[in-house]
Amino acid sequence: MDTAPIEELVREGDVTALTARLADTPVLTVAEELSRLDGSETAVAFRVLSRDRALEVFEALDPSDQQQVLDGLRDDRVLHLVENLDPDDRVRLFDELPAKVVTLLLEQLSPAERRMTGLLMGYPEDSVGRHMSPEYVSLRASLTVEDALARIRREGVDAETIYALPVLDDHRRLIGVTGLRSLIVADPATRIGDLMTTDVHMVTTDTDREDAARLVREAGLIALPVVDSEQRLVGVLTVDDAMEILEVEETEDFALHGGHAPLNKPYLAVSAFGLARARGVWLLVLIIAAALTVNVLQFFEDTLEQVVTLALFIPLLIDTGGNSGAQASTAVIRAMAVGEVRLADLPRIVWREARVGVLLGAMLAVAVFIPVTLIWGADFGFVMAITLVTICTWATIAGAALPLLAKRIGIDPAVVSAPVITTLVDATGLVIYFLVAITILGL
Amino acid sequence: MDTAPIEELVREGDVTALTARLADTPVLTVAEELSRLDGSETAVAFRVLSRDRALEVFEALDPSDQQQVLDGLRDDRVLHLVENLDPDDRVRLFDELPAKVVTLLLEQLSPAERRMTGLLMGYPEDSVGRHMSPEYVSLRASLTVEDALARIRREGVDAETIYALPVLDDHRRLIGVTGLRSLIVADPATRIGDLMTTDVHMVTTDTDREDAARLVREAGLIALPVVDSEQRLVGVLTVDDAMEILEVEETEDFALHGGHAPLNKPYLAVSAFGLARARGVWLLVLIIAAALTVNVLQFFEDTLEQVVTLALFIPLLIDTGGNSGAQASTAVIRAMAVGEVRLADLPRIVWREARVGVLLGAMLAVAVFIPVTLIWGADFGFVMAITLVTICTWATIAGAALPLLAKRIGIDPAVVSAPVITTLVDATGLVIYFLVAITILGL
Repeated sequence: MDTAPIEELVREGDVTALTARLADTPVLTVAEELSRLDGSETAVAFRVLSRDRALEVFEALDPSDQQQVLDGLRDDRVLHLVENLDPDDRVRLFDELPAKVVTLLLEQLSPAERRMTGLLMGYPEDSVGRHMSPEYVSLRASLTVEDALARIRREGVDAETIYALPVLDDHRRLIGVTGLRSLIVADPATRIGDLMTTDVHMVTTDTDREDAARLVREAGLIALPVVDSEQRLVGVLTVDDAMEILEVEETEDFALHGGHAPLNKPYLAVSAFGLARARGVWLLVLIIAAALTVNVLQFFEDTLEQVVTLALFIPLLIDTGGNSGAQASTAVIRAMAVGEVRLADLPRIVWREARVGVLLGAMLAVAVFIPVTLIWGADFGFVMAITLVTICTWATIAGAALPLLAKRIGIDPAVVSAPVITTLVDATGLVIYFLVAITILGL
Repeated sequence: MDTAPIEELVREGDVTALTARLADTPVLTVAEELSRLDGSETAVAFRVLSRDRALEVFEALDPSDQQQVLDGLRDDRVLHLVENLDPDDRVRLFDELPAKVVTLLLEQLSPAERRMTGLLMGYPEDSVGRHMSPEYVSLRASLTVEDALARIRREGVDAETIYALPVLDDHRRLIGVTGLRSLIVADPATRIGDLMTTDVHMVTTDTDREDAARLVREAGLIALPVVDSEQRLVGVLTVDDAMEILEVEETEDFALHGGHAPLNKPYLAVSAFGLARARGVWLLVLIIAAALTVNVLQFFEDTLEQVVTLALFIPLLIDTGGNSGAQASTAVIRAMAVGEVRLADLPRIVWREARVGVLLGAMLAVAVFIPVTLIWGADFGFVMAITLVTICTWATIAGAALPLLAKRIGIDPAVVSAPVITTLVDATGLVIYFLVAITILGL
């Protein structure tokens, strides 16, 4: 894909070539290229887009990139862009903007748009309420298919989706769903009530956005109805918004997993300072935790002075402990994320992982025993073998149990990432090692 | 969610209670509960489901669970289940079954079903060809809206989706798309050619399934047309299949990231032996790589004997190197996965990460200098400070560059995970440490 020129054209300020290039390039590619530029460059590229194309590209950008664009444009273009976003996308953009700008923009929206946006902004940040679309077409059960189609023709153009059609009773309570597809193939005189499915997936506005998005994925829905506490319909979560939520959540999990705070912008759009900030706190916390290893070794310093050879195996042993712990925690964190295991499975998981740890430790012990015995003698061979089995078992159990325990006390399990497990099992691993060594070598 | 009883009811063999319970429970929950049971238990629970409900639950299961169910059922029920799956889901199930069973089942399918399934099975395993649905409704550009709707009524009931409608020319070449929504609101006399969008996203059958699925997500599509090398339509990738692909790919990335082979079944369905197998090879490779640290320390054993205190900081230093490397590699791997960076960005990334590494190293050096100086003297303080800056910078650069280089030589970047980075930077980190120590302490 030879798309590099866009970046270069912007930097060279070649407006004519840039205009031609941007008009030729698919919207998604333009959005992708723009997200690789920094603030002022993005605005430059944006100015040369035609008004309609500009909106399409704007919709395809992340909120943080959208903000960069807004910063660089004149007021009336800003309003045009903001006004034409779907209400739920607008709320996400407003989350990123300074409060002052939001107030200004809200004032300029039409009363209907303002009401819908304000409504969504009232829900907690990670709830599905924030992400649902208040633009949908709902039907009464008593309607005939013919009347329903007429209604869809009248209202459907503005609604974000009309493929999934919620069916309501006289109190606006959700009692079923049907689809445009069923209406098309049905006899025009059929009542909606006879056509709808009553076994409906639905969530309330305060449902966690990730849970709602997962339900859309698992059940293969096009739109998931969102209801209030009295089961009255207030919006729908569309499949494209659900996919976006899952991507954001997965990016967050990956970041936590690598031991750093999630970046809320594309990687290249974050400065070196920004990256350092996202990682610095974690590194600092981890190095403070690692100070415990210094204390442990200080405690065994006499033993080390007697047999310096013991120091040679420290990195290998703590790496192995960290790795087997990281393996177990990754597997459990992922299984929790996709809903395969829950807290009640803890005893079962610990028992399984204990056996896995013993198996893995025994395998490593066999692999290491002969070379170590040949070079440093059988005593060292036994020290290493016993230490490996013990450390692997302990690390595997800890790695599997900690994410579940973290969730129990309300911490995101993804926080118990490889670096955290490594640091935690290091100190304990060293204690195990020295106790085994002291016993076997008779120190 | 009090759903535990299903497991218990199956184990107790209480068929009456189980039948009542399963009839009451939503399909997705039943599927979830079944995937937590082992082989024979799954089949027991499955037998008591009604025929229609059984199909719905079967569709919601993973292919590996589906296989367990098939193993435990009588032949005609098996055929009923297999016959009623969508062709693309059937192909995925067949991938998991022994070849003998596949041949047997294929023979029993209707000729039309067999042709579609056989067609899909001809594409490479990770291609979108395997996952597309050959059941779609396509329209000619010359058709009127009225005729198109009549055609959809006739054909649409069996097609997997009719919300996105590909438009073809006289040679079956894809020239546009339209949606049921546009047809509904349009004047019945309008030609499809005047209604369709010609700026169409499409992929060829050999496109990587993950790229195709990402395109569905980025562009917010309900179905992505899949064409052959001459742009003739052969199928569509629906949004629910795209979401499933992304979930599988993300689970794989997570597994690699934790340093183990992906499990192709739900976590609880894998035995302790299976888990050990998925992790054992990696652990073994990593411990062999870690043997390098033993060699490095052996090389500096005299220095260690002179100043045993140096050993105290080994775990802390290699942990910090591993952590900063893991942070950088996670960020870059994720940015690559979502298409934010590419190989050409390597110099830019290395330069950014080098600055990040220096910043982080400097911060840690400041934090560590004073306590180390107070306890072990200023010489040790300087050794630690200089080592931390150097190790952080080196680990950050290596962590960021290695995923890109891995991709360059055709290895999945996700393989360059935290455990791999840790092991790689450990040996080099120790060399840096001892060289700095020898210089400053004058050994």
